[in-house]
Amino acid sequence: MKPGALVLLTDFGLQDPYVGVMKGVILGLSPRARIVDLAHGVPAQDVRSAAFSLMSAAPFFPQGSLFVTVVDPGVGTGRRILWARGRRWQFLFPDNGVTGWVERVEPFSEVREVSSKDLFLPVVSSTFHGRDIFAPVAAGLSRGLAPAKLGPRTRSWEALCFPEPEIGRTKTAGEVLVVDRFGNAVTNIPFEAAGKGGVVGFRGRRIGEVRSSYACVPPGTVLAVRGSWGFVELSVRDGDFAGRYKASPGDRVEVSRP
Amino acid sequence: MKPGALVLLTDFGLQDPYVGVMKGVILGLSPRARIVDLAHGVPAQDVRSAAFSLMSAAPFFPQGSLFVTVVDPGVGTGRRILWARGRRWQFLFPDNGVTGWVERVEPFSEVREVSSKDLFLPVVSSTFHGRDIFAPVAAGLSRGLAPAKLGPRTRSWEALCFPEPEIGRTKTAGEVLVVDRFGNAVTNIPFEAAGKGGVVGFRGRRIGEVRSSYACVPPGTVLAVRGSWGFVELSVRDGDFAGRYKASPGDRVEVSRP
Amino acid sequence: MKPGALVLLTDFGLQDPYVGVMKGVILGLSPRARIVDLAHGVPAQDVRSAAFSLMSAAPFFPQGSLFVTVVDPGVGTGRRILWARGRRWQFLFPDNGVTGWVERVEPFSEVREVSSKDLFLPVVSSTFHGRDIFAPVAAGLSRGLAPAKLGPRTRSWEALCFPEPEIGRTKTAGEVLVVDRFGNAVTNIPFEAAGKGGVVGFRGRRIGEVRSSYACVPPGTVLAVRGSWGFVELSVRDGDFAGRYKASPGDRVEVSRP
Repeated sequence: MKPGALVLLTDFGLQDPYVGVMKGVILGLSPRARIVDLAHGVPAQDVRSAAFSLMSAAPFFPQGSLFVTVVDPGVGTGRRILWARGRRWQFLFPDNGVTGWVERVEPFSEVREVSSKDLFLPVVSSTFHGRDIFAPVAAGLSRGLAPAKLGPRTRSWEALCFPEPEIGRTKTAGEVLVVDRFGNAVTNIPFEAAGKGGVVGFRGRRIGEVRSSYACVPPGTVLAVRGSWGFVELSVRDGDFAGRYKASPGDRVEVSRP
Repeated sequence: MKPGALVLLTDFGLQDPYVGVMKGVILGLSPRARIVDLAHGVPAQDVRSAAFSLMSAAPFFPQGSLFVTVVDPGVGTGRRILWARGRRWQFLFPDNGVTGWVERVEPFSEVREVSSKDLFLPVVSSTFHGRDIFAPVAAGLSRGLAPAKLGPRTRSWEALCFPEPEIGRTKTAGEVLVVDRFGNAVTNIPFEAAGKGGVVGFRGRRIGEVRSSYACVPPGTVLAVRGSWGFVELSVRDGDFAGRYKASPGDRVEVSRP
Repeated sequence: MKPGALVLLTDFGLQDPYVGVMKGVILGLSPRARIVDLAHGVPAQDVRSAAFSLMSAAPFFPQGSLFVTVVDPGVGTGRRILWARGRRWQFLFPDNGVTGWVERVEPFSEVREVSSKDLFLPVVSSTFHGRDIFAPVAAGLSRGLAPAKLGPRTRSWEALCFPEPEIGRTKTAGEVLVVDRFGNAVTNIPFEAAGKGGVVGFRGRRIGEVRSSYACVPPGTVLAVRGSWGFVELSVRDGDFAGRYKASPGDRVEVSRP
């Protein structure tokens, strides 16, 4: 039960000392903790982007990893902080829906409200719970703290709804989930659903069939490709799809079958 | 005395190999060193921003941490490299004033000039002392090198002056210390000094009373809030204050009491 | 032979979970691996920039380090993945020439094609070999896997050609290799080659003699300086050369001797 690694996911960036301070608090309480950075450049307060990172990354982490997610626009409001575990991993997160997408692959078997104030730093600010609550609680868990000591179980929590594509007989309608740093637009359409011969369209523009690899088209060419997370992605080979076509999360993507 | 963690604070960013190379040098000399990144996205050569990060972060790190700060516009000039310790932490830094603000919470009991060339890399460039001096010296300290071997004690060094707010009977005048990645403007006004009923103003604009949390106002609203470092901060809930009002370090902030 | 540290160099940035996921895969297979970030902000798909980082950084890492480079515009094409070792370090990299510059200081004594599919993740995508091949293979090597198990030896591979400067009797013609985050333009001209009294020119503009340090000129002044990697660099003291003069990799730089 003792987590093997503390995996940090935040929107704090690297300009300010926020991430470093969280590590300082963790090390002070749990000097041997294994801290791993998942990502800290999540767009500011973008819960959806963090939900995507959790869903995508968790399956590649060892059993027993604790994912500490601090993308928390509701800090200082009444939103709760929760701890949850499924079969393989544990999660510490603000109750803002951020685990909604990872729950598709890891249903939670136990969820607790993190309310035992004796686990927090002595002074808790209303603007930086990452330092004052998440870090010391994660440190405690990494030292073997029994989850029952965190606070009472809860049976309801927020879960961002995964935008399931509408899969029809001749047409599948989906959307862009996230845009990555290369400008690839990751959609919510599993590539099996694109089917054989399906033609991808984006804002009325014909992109073409789903290719198995960038290598199927010449450099500079737009393509739909089997992405590494299991979904259809829209890309420009050696280029920047989202930059060229102003694609953003939520944009509609279609696949038509002849 | 042996530092528990080497905490790196630089303006090197992650595009170039500068930070990585410092870690390579440290690992070569001290394979078990615990290296922690405090922040590497300090704006280029912005000593004041680094001073803020040191002052803010140190209190959350365990006793015995060694803060290695390489924000060093004077590299290659005659500026000295110094080592200092207070009651809880140690510091390795260029003599450019960067520790001036952290000394408010951690007065130095011993300061030494780092001048023993046998501790440096064999070839010392005039442009990258982070690699050639700071890294090997930090590695040495992490292995238990006696500070007396670094070089002679010194009794004078640069210290950036913390801009204390002018606290009057009906008005407190302060300024913006730093702007963080979310666009929050952190001021130098302790929130106790804002007092009950004090009204914050920024460039002649009335911001309002200091709130205890973002949650006190609707999304998109400007507010002054008790920040997580103990100071009044100017923010837009779920928004970007500095972007909206073009706020920068040094901008004047006032609190008036009726 | 067992590598001491896994040194990661990618163009993945910190916005997306790509780097974090690679670390998850490594930790799952090799829980005690020492992972070091060399840099993750290499400009997207910029093999030349990664080649520069490898060449510059490797000499400062301890013997036995394994450099895992994933700057890989050819992912999904037929390009091979290679493992190589020289006298001091090991490398895992796409066969796109990225090691060409480091081979100047570390000639390879053994190069192998990484083709043993049983070392890869069970499902290999065509777009993210960093996760599916590089990470598990690096983890295997860190646990002592014999390199012979990776795949057959090969005697030919891509190697980016280092642009050697043309050194003449009265003139040396070189170019900008990379621009760093401070706006310094690192050239391919070793500072010994600039010689005594050599005058540096950039696009017909006279920069002046190569200085030993930024301190030789007042703040805001353009200068050519002995850079920390052994080459002449073009800089503005406390400023941004590349920003001011729109310098980019490949731009011609000259040194004239009287």
